[in-house]
This record gives sequence, C-alpha cells and structure tokens, in this order.
Amino acid sequence: MTISVAVSGASGYAGGELLRLLSNHPQVSIGAITAHSNAGSRLGALQPHLHSLSDRLLEETTAANLSGHDVVFLALPHGASAELAAQLPAETLVIDAGADHRLEDPAAWKAFYGSEHSGSWPYGLPELPGQREKLRGSKRIAVPGCYPTGSLLALAPGFAAGMLLPEDVVIVSASGTSGAGKSLKANLLGSEVIGSMSPYGVGGGHRHTPEIEQGLSQVAGEAVTISFTPTLAPMSRGILTTATVKVAPQLVKGGNVAEELRQIWAEAYQDEPFIHLLPEGQWPATQSVYGSNHVALQLAFDEHAGRLVICAVIDNLTKGTAGGAVQSMNIALGLEETLGLGQQGVAP
Amino acid sequence: MTISVAVSGASGYAGGELLRLLSNHPQVSIGAITAHSNAGSRLGALQPHLHSLSDRLLEETTAANLSGHDVVFLALPHGASAELAAQLPAETLVIDAGADHRLEDPAAWKAFYGSEHSGSWPYGLPELPGQREKLRGSKRIAVPGCYPTGSLLALAPGFAAGMLLPEDVVIVSASGTSGAGKSLKANLLGSEVIGSMSPYGVGGGHRHTPEIEQGLSQVAGEAVTISFTPTLAPMSRGILTTATVKVAPQLVKGGNVAEELRQIWAEAYQDEPFIHLLPEGQWPATQSVYGSNHVALQLAFDEHAGRLVICAVIDNLTKGTAGGAVQSMNIALGLEETLGLGQQGVAP
Amino acid sequence: MTISVAVSGASGYAGGELLRLLSNHPQVSIGAITAHSNAGSRLGALQPHLHSLSDRLLEETTAANLSGHDVVFLALPHGASAELAAQLPAETLVIDAGADHRLEDPAAWKAFYGSEHSGSWPYGLPELPGQREKLRGSKRIAVPGCYPTGSLLALAPGFAAGMLLPEDVVIVSASGTSGAGKSLKANLLGSEVIGSMSPYGVGGGHRHTPEIEQGLSQVAGEAVTISFTPTLAPMSRGILTTATVKVAPQLVKGGNVAEELRQIWAEAYQDEPFIHLLPEGQWPATQSVYGSNHVALQLAFDEHAGRLVICAVIDNLTKGTAGGAVQSMNIALGLEETLGLGQQGVAP
Amino acid sequence: MTISVAVSGASGYAGGELLRLLSNHPQVSIGAITAHSNAGSRLGALQPHLHSLSDRLLEETTAANLSGHDVVFLALPHGASAELAAQLPAETLVIDAGADHRLEDPAAWKAFYGSEHSGSWPYGLPELPGQREKLRGSKRIAVPGCYPTGSLLALAPGFAAGMLLPEDVVIVSASGTSGAGKSLKANLLGSEVIGSMSPYGVGGGHRHTPEIEQGLSQVAGEAVTISFTPTLAPMSRGILTTATVKVAPQLVKGGNVAEELRQIWAEAYQDEPFIHLLPEGQWPATQSVYGSNHVALQLAFDEHAGRLVICAVIDNLTKGTAGGAVQSMNIALGLEETLGLGQQGVAP
Repeated sequence: MTISVAVSGASGYAGGELLRLLSNHPQVSIGAITAHSNAGSRLGALQPHLHSLSDRLLEETTAANLSGHDVVFLALPHGASAELAAQLPAETLVIDAGADHRLEDPAAWKAFYGSEHSGSWPYGLPELPGQREKLRGSKRIAVPGCYPTGSLLALAPGFAAGMLLPEDVVIVSASGTSGAGKSLKANLLGSEVIGSMSPYGVGGGHRHTPEIEQGLSQVAGEAVTISFTPTLAPMSRGILTTATVKVAPQLVKGGNVAEELRQIWAEAYQDEPFIHLLPEGQWPATQSVYGSNHVALQLAFDEHAGRLVICAVIDNLTKGTAGGAVQSMNIALGLEETLGLGQQGVAP
Repeated sequence: MTISVAVSGASGYAGGELLRLLSNHPQVSIGAITAHSNAGSRLGALQPHLHSLSDRLLEETTAANLSGHDVVFLALPHGASAELAAQLPAETLVIDAGADHRLEDPAAWKAFYGSEHSGSWPYGLPELPGQREKLRGSKRIAVPGCYPTGSLLALAPGFAAGMLLPEDVVIVSASGTSGAGKSLKANLLGSEVIGSMSPYGVGGGHRHTPEIEQGLSQVAGEAVTISFTPTLAPMSRGILTTATVKVAPQLVKGGNVAEELRQIWAEAYQDEPFIHLLPEGQWPATQSVYGSNHVALQLAFDEHAGRLVICAVIDNLTKGTAGGAVQSMNIALGLEETLGLGQQGVAP
Repeated sequence: MTISVAVSGASGYAGGELLRLLSNHPQVSIGAITAHSNAGSRLGALQPHLHSLSDRLLEETTAANLSGHDVVFLALPHGASAELAAQLPAETLVIDAGADHRLEDPAAWKAFYGSEHSGSWPYGLPELPGQREKLRGSKRIAVPGCYPTGSLLALAPGFAAGMLLPEDVVIVSASGTSGAGKSLKANLLGSEVIGSMSPYGVGGGHRHTPEIEQGLSQVAGEAVTISFTPTLAPMSRGILTTATVKVAPQLVKGGNVAEELRQIWAEAYQDEPFIHLLPEGQWPATQSVYGSNHVALQLAFDEHAGRLVICAVIDNLTKGTAGGAVQSMNIALGLEETLGLGQQGVAP
Repeated sequence: MTISVAVSGASGYAGGELLRLLSNHPQVSIGAITAHSNAGSRLGALQPHLHSLSDRLLEETTAANLSGHDVVFLALPHGASAELAAQLPAETLVIDAGADHRLEDPAAWKAFYGSEHSGSWPYGLPELPGQREKLRGSKRIAVPGCYPTGSLLALAPGFAAGMLLPEDVVIVSASGTSGAGKSLKANLLGSEVIGSMSPYGVGGGHRHTPEIEQGLSQVAGEAVTISFTPTLAPMSRGILTTATVKVAPQLVKGGNVAEELRQIWAEAYQDEPFIHLLPEGQWPATQSVYGSNHVALQLAFDEHAGRLVICAVIDNLTKGTAGGAVQSMNIALGLEETLGLGQQGVAP
C-alpha cells in the first residue's frame, strides 16, 4: 500500500522536518508540497538538506492543491489551519502540526491565542494513557506542541499513578532555536543566540502552558497547575525539560520512595518503542535524540527538598513536531507505529 | 598605592580570569603566577588570550612563592586551599576562589565534600544584606560558588523582606562549560557539548546546594530548602538562573503583588553598581554579561501558579568567580569597589 | 539476504556512526560490537544515541570476536588495523575506516606516519573515475580520510578532464571537532572550541596531505602538488572544503571558461546519487549534509585571479567515514549502492 | 583632557562595540549616541551589555546632533557616511567605520559598490609600513574592513620585504556572524548558522577584495592579485585568516627560507603593541583575541608546495572595526596609542 501525502508549510522548519521523515517512510509517496510566500520556488533553494526532493516545486497552499491525498499535513501558523482543514474532505486524514486544534477549553484558547476557538482534535501523543486508542482510525489529529511533548512525557506516569501532587509543579525547559521557527526576528539572529541563554514567556504567559496543564489534568483526573518557564539555548534543535513535582504524602510514608517512583516510570514506558528510561545514574543529553523520534529520561527523588525531579530530552522538530505527526499517522492508518521513524539519534 | 598580588592555579579557567581582570586593574601589580603540573611553562602557552603576560613563567604553587604579596588569590581544587592558606601570613589578604571556606556547617561540608571541614571565611558576596561590611578590612575571604552567586542574587531581596516562603524554592540553572573547569573528561569535549543540553547533579547532590541554602537561610532568618538542578549548556561562559518561589500569603492578600515584589528588588539593588533589575518586559540574556562583573535580572509573578519567577544572568568566571574575587579585594582594601571591573559585557 | 557485520572501535565516533548507519540498513544484521578499553560496557553508556542497540555489550577487539561475519568494519587508530586484518579470513569483506591501507607509496606512509607500510587496499571513493569498478567484489577496502573525501570530490572532475594545472592547488578545509575523535585533549574541550576557529597541521604536515595528492595525481595522470591547511571549526560535524586551482591555459584561451568548467563537473556527477552540484548561485552549507552521505558543491571561476574556486561540504563522520564505508560495502557486495543511506541531511 | 565623542549607528554591532570600548577609555566622554530607525529608544533595549549607558536615549543620526564633538564615529551602511561627513566641520575628527572612504580607485569603488566614489581618507591601519605617520593629526580616517585588517596584517611584512610573489595569493577567511551585521536575513538566523560552515561571495565578488589588493599593492610597490574566499563560521565574533603565497625565487635560492621569513615578520611586528607573532609551533585561535584589539599570527613555510602559509586571528568587531577605530583616534589626537584598549582577550 502506498500512502499519498501532502505537506503544507514546506518552507518552514516543521514542514522541512515532515518532508525529511516522510521521504524516508517506506510506504509514503510525497504529493503536493505547498507554501505561502515561497510558492513557485524550488524546494532545494529553501531546504537544501532534502537532497532527493530538491527539484520539487512548491505549490500554493490551497485546499485544492492539498486535496486528493490520503494524508494532509498542516505546518502552518496558528489560525491558518482551521480554515483550511474545514475545506478538506472528511475522509482525508488531516494532521495539524500547528496549535489550532490542541486545546479543548475555548476559554483557554481565547485567553492565550486571542481568537475564536476552532474546536479540538484527538491529541497525537500516543504514549499518554489511553491515547493511542483514540488515534486509531482517526481522521483528524492535533500534533502536540514541542514543550508539551517533553513535559507530558516526563510527568504523565506519576500523575497517572496518583503519586504526585497536582499543585506546585515547576517546569523549566531549554529549547533549541528552531522551536521559534524561521521568522526574521533580531533576537533569533545567530549573533544573538550563539553563546547565550535567555528566558522568555516567563510568568505563565507561554501558549504551551494551558496545553501542558490540560494534558496533565486529564492524566491526573484533577486540575494540575504548573509554573512553566521556557528558555532559549544556543543550539538549533532539542529540548531539555526539567520538571520538579512534589510526591503525594501517602507515598512518602512508604518505604523506598525513589525505587517506587522509578518502578512507575519503568512500567509505564517498558513497551514504548520511543521512550527510554535510562539506567540509574545516567542522565540524558539532547544530543542523544538529535534528529530522532526518541525520548530519553531519568528521574531522581530529592528527599531533602521533598521533590521528584524528572529530566527528559526530545528533538523539538522530530518527536516534538514532525516525528510525532508521522507516528500518529502510522497509528491512525493502522501501520506499524515505528515505520519510517527507525533512525537513531545523530551524535555527536 | 600599588598592590602586589599573586595568583595560584593560573593555568586553569578561574586563574586565567583572575589574571585577565587583575592585569586591567589600575592599582595592581601582578607578582607570582603559580601552577601545579604546569609550573615552568610560559603563561602564553596556556592562556594565549593574556597577551600582556604571555612571557611570564609559571612558578610552583608553594607558600614560599605566594608569600610577600599584599594579596594572594587561590584558584585551586577544593581541599588544596586550606592547607596552603594556613601557611600564609595573617596580614596577607587571602582570597580563596575555591570551595574550602564557604560552608559554615561542618556537617554540610562533610556530607557534600567528604573531608574534614576547614572552617569558614567571610563570604565574598557584598550585595547580600550586611555582607559588604563584613568584607571591609577582612584578611580572609571565601569567594562564592558560581551557581550560588546567581541564585542568591536572584532570591535574596525577597527573603530579606520576608515575602517568600522558605520551602519549595525551585532553582534550575544553565551554565556554560567553563564552570566545569579544564579537566579532561569525555563529557566536556566539544563534540559532546556543542548542540546539547544536559543536566547533572540532579536530586540535590550538587555541592553548591548547601551553599545556596546557607546564604538564603541567613538572609531569611529561617531555614530555606531548595530543589536545585544544574544543567550544562552549549556555551563557554554564562549562567542563567531560573528561580521560582512561593510568595508569603500575607503578601498575596495585599494589593498589587507583582508591583510590590518588583519594588522590593528595585530598592534592594538601586545602589548596587553591578546588579541591574531590567525595565519591565525585558528579560536578560547571558550574552549581556559576557566577560563582565555585571548581573542582570528580571522577575514575573505568576498569579495562576502562585509563584514568583526570577531570572538572573551572570558570567560564571567573572561575577561568579574572578570578578567577585576582585570586587571583594577592592572592598577589603578600602578601594573603590568597581576599580578594574568597569568593563561592559562583550556582545554579541 | 542478510549480511552479518561486526564493528570494532565501537566506542569512538567513527564506530558509533557505523553502527548508526548499519542499524538502519535493511539487509544488515549487527553481530559483534567490539572495543578496546571499553570492552564489557553497555553500548548505551557510550553511545546513548543508538537507542535500539543500547543494551548490547561491547566485546574485546580480537580477531576471534570479529571472525565469522560477512563484513568486518575496522574503526581503529592507525597502526592497529593492519595486524588485525591479517588475522581475518581472506573471504571476509574487511573495510578499514582507519589510515593503514590508504597510501600506496611506502615512502609517503613512512614520512607521515613514521611506521612500516602495511600495503594498500582498493580505495573506497567510488565517485573517482574508474574507482567504482575496483570496489565490486573486493574483499579489502580502505575508507578514505575525511579531508581527502571532500578535497578529491571537489577537484577530481577538473583534473580528470585535464583542465587544471597540477601545481599551485590550494585547499583550506574547516572541520567539525568530531574529526579529531574522542581523545581527551585540552584543545578539544568544549570551552576551548566553542566560539573559536583555529588552524593546525599547517605547512604541509597533516597526514591527509599525501592522500589527497595521491588521489589527485591518479586522476590527473601526473603529479599534483597541494598546499593543504586544515582548521577546526566550532561545530561537531561537517567539513567545508575550499579548493582553489589554476585552470589550464588552453582552456582560458577558449570561450566561456566558467560555463565550460561548470559543464565538466555537471557531467561528472550527473549520475552520482550522493553528489550534488548546486544550481548556479547557490552555495553549500555543511548543515545541509549533516548526518547524511550526501555531498553538495558549487564552483566559481575568478577571472581576475585566474583561479577556479570549488566549495564542497560533507559530513566528516558520514560520507567522510562511516557512510563512505557502507556505500563501499554495498558496492563490494553487489547491493544497491544507496541501500541504508537514504537519509537526507538533518537541518536546521 | 577630556575628548567628547559622538557615535552614530549605535544600534548596530559596530556601533555597540564602539560604545563598549569608548566607555572604557579614560579620556573620552560619550556625547551623542545616534541611530536611524531606533532613534528615541533606550540604548539598554538594544545593547543590553552596555550597562553603564543603558539609560541613554538614541538621537536621530543628523549632522546637527553629531556636531559639537571632538570626534565623530560613523558606523553606517556604505553610502550613508559620505553625505553626512560632508556636513561635519573640517576641524572635527571624523572616523568612518564604513566602507565609503577606503578605496582610492574610483573604478574599483564603482565596480564593487555600484555608486559614485566619495574619495578616500587616510587608512586606519597603523601597522602598515608608513601608515601610522599618515594618521597623526589627520581629521578624516577610514577604518579598514574586517577581512582586510586580518589579511593585510598577515601578509604585509613579506610584501614590504619584497619576498613574496604578487600573483597567486590565496586567502580563505572564516568569520563570525557579527561581521554580517544585525540585518534580518534568513541565512543569519541562529538555526541556520549554528553547526554550519558556509562560503559566500566566492570567486572574487566580495567587496573587501579590492581593498585587500589595494593595501597589498601599496606595500609591495606593484600590483598584487588575490583569490579571496570568505566563509561564515558558527561563532559570533572572530576572523581566522589563512593566507598562502609563493615566495620569491631569489629567497628560495637562499639558505633557511623558513627562518628568514620568520625573521621578517618578527622584525616587522616587534614593537607593535597589538600584533603578536606566536612562538614557533603555537597556532592562534580566534578565542584568544575575543573582545580585544590584539592580533595573533603564525607562519609556516611549506617547502613541498613552495608556499608560505600565514594564519592570523582578529576579533572582527574590535581590531577589525571599533578597536581599530579607537586606536586610530588615539594616534590622530596624539594620545598613547593603546589608551582604552588594554583589555586582554576574553577566554575561554
């Protein structure tokens, strides 16, 4: 079976990564490749790393150009996906790598994005409890944000097991610059980011905050509140998530807290092909997942501070965007989940 | 008045930075420059950026070679300073950039360093309440660790004002690789650190943890407990400290919490020559303090999460080590505090 | 058909890259993975990016452990391969990623490596004229050095066409730090290489100099002399080769020199799956071949200086080492040449 | 004596570096700070590393605002300086960090810049033979381009001594991204430049080519032709110049060519405060001159290739722009040449 796919937003980083992965997928045939202001250009002029596709021309991002494929990937700025998706056939699998269909709560959408809510689609993070089933056969999938992917995978097992307190979760994430996209902003110039770390969206204002809370709350079965601080790191790819959370008193009363907690994460992820709880004492580096759909994590219980600390690394463009999208496509279409995603990380 | 200084550990990063700053100090004359295994080498072979000192030869690090100067800087591995310092005249100003004399609690020292405690010296962080006075005329000064410098300056004003809760402080810091020194470890190779973020010492194990708690507890007047996670960032210099803390209920009951908190930090640092609370909305980047003794910080109150977030940037080698040492020397000797430290950050 | 392979030197960067590529190869089964001082370790502790192989244990690098496979890859320091190879069965395909069997001239070997010559093997750069045929069915293959791969692919078409003068070739290459391997040297520490460019082996002393001259001379049919300067760039992977050369007077006499030269390169590489002459005006960046076996190049004729300038980019670990090795294996075994090497570059 | 200075173009990288250096200059008082589109902004919002000047407001770049100072620095795009300079009093020292007044040949200007020539001013590279004298008392100075600074300092001694052949000079330079300024171009985004080397302006098209040839030709006393290839390196500052050149036959006939050549450079620079010929065997790294006005260089004679190779490192913003400008100001005003420029490099 060959699956025909179309990719919109192909001149951006998310679009480029989708094409990189899809061109390695053994059952995929890449159809329309579309863009907005770059329509008409050779792909090779914009994404010179996609050697096998360099002579392909970018078409205009329109429903007409995207129609007629088995799968359509949307890698568009938020606000642009919903309108386009509405024009695509119901039987087409539409996978939105943008934000438009992630939040279920219209008020949260309105508060953080300022526009009308477009409704929510099944959330493409199959490693969350019960989530994989919701993706099978689905025709609409919302790909999680990059920060939420790292944060939810770091914390979900403990919340699912009822072992963590829902308040006072503190998450600090360091992201590579590609997470900010290809937009021409002075603070994203190489001269500005090389050799520099800086925070942004501090104090709860980042748009991924309600998305992380939504996911954790669903897993926990109660409202979870987080303090989330994203920072920009001098690297092009990768997110290191450092999440600290208080453990429930009933657990602390028990015996070997650290061992019990470790067991919970180990069991939650033992059959996951992309999630790796590292051996004790080994801490993850973003380099180890560079260009791959893998996630590596480790945890430590700080008895003195009464907090569990989980560190998780992902590639923001792969597992955090395009890899998660392809993984979700595989599940939705009933393919082997890891198809086309077998690559290891690229290191050093 | 010319002050003669000796610098030990001159082949390492801290020693090199001390020499960089001292060679720019208008009242300092650099005497003995000493090292351990590199004794006998030209300084230019080891620190090629110190152009005006390149032909100086490194002497052996001995009490005899260090004696006879007005000031002796020790930039040695922990454990090495105490023995050497004991052999130096009581009237010599000895400034220890290492860890040996920072912790006041012998039990904490033993727990984190594993050896016998060497006693504590006045702590060279003059911006802490009351601390500047303790340094005037002192003949022994312990330079704070680099992470504690960033963390304490971020949090001290709020604790001094009684506005922060002493439990549940969460600090995540990202440091450049020079903080790990020049030791030949595989994880510090350029190929490993370029393009990669990684945590270490997670779960309360980093040796700077008790030092941060000591400083915060003294300022707060009660025991402060922190969760501290250091991470390694792909840059040679700089620390971004992200500290989050709960504000005291009596404050939250008040009116404009964010404004009140901002006022506290603004007043605490209004006369400090090196500490800069940025205008509202502007967040600091480590690049802005590169190579300088300056500290830039910003804060935001996250009402939803009930937490105050403070981000502070320092250069780990300058304000975090050698700059702090020179600043302390200036105070101890009654010189103008900023002498020799006037440089701006080097950016971009 | 499943091909069993063994990889020695698996704890180093070249060995890790071989395993990364081989684990993606559809017809390869990875047998023994061996190392020297790291024998007995989990692979995941040393190469955490090789997720699917993380639980494999490293065996000792001995002929006995390597025997019994269809293909043996040697990724060892020079001097170590020859002895080991001599103990492997003649019918085993042995691919040496080290230097031992690259140079044909014993005097050149002696002059640059200081030891006795081990003889030469077919050179694994199939894009050189006539070279692909020499690799088919071969049981011994010497993988080219990383700098020679970039330099030879940049210059070979012009020399093969007799259009370039054999003297006064000047090559300046910038390499990522992984080219220097995982050895613990102070100048390879992250703190030293981040933010810094530096030359080394200047003046003709680098060991890849005679290898480049050997390749160019064979293609040109006369002795070619080069000035080669390698430099270390602050990135983990990639080589940018800048080669300048004088064009033969008979060519300059002709009409449109630039166009004629362009035509020569275009024709030489038109059927090569991994070599891409970019459209006029587009210059290559090493990022575009990151983690891939592709090569991108561009040329310009500088009429004023009378020189042709060719810039070529490769990934030193992929096309420059492990990718070239796998490509050669495919050819030697009669497989499709691109098998297991289909990946695009990983960018940004 | 206090010298009042005005700095235009203060929101860019060259303007920022001028302000950084001038704020450390003991005899300088900084007057007007001007910009174009950023007029009205706080300097701290644009140049957050200039802590002592952060509250200064940017004025409009007009002759009226710049007038009334002893010295005016122009850090403007080419084409903008000439018109402005014409409106400034003849007795004001005007130092142009832009390109407008560097080239003496109107035809070269026209060919490379496309506009009418504005005439040339004394060239602010005092280390060239006889050049220092031309700057004393001068009221108009053209600051050399960053690439020419590195190239001319690398090659001048040999050409001045008549030991180098004027044809077939090959220069390949690697520059940090700040050399490209703060303009918002996609290829300058952090995501694009991190981990990547790329060439540009290949084949003789870079505007610094005629400037380098002009300087070398004046020193040599005959027309010198160069092949110049600039490349962009993943670092914010620094230029590594690799220059190779053929030595004159009469020299090669002599005895110890390498030693004779070394002697020429050693003598040429023995009294220069900022130029350092490193001890034999030590090669320069750009890190060693980071943020400083120093230049480090080394040379090697490649007997096999018949070429001399010189590698020189500068900081493109300091010695390559603003430092060179301040040094020239000191000379023009009769101050000590090194005043305000005493800083060592900032490393690691």
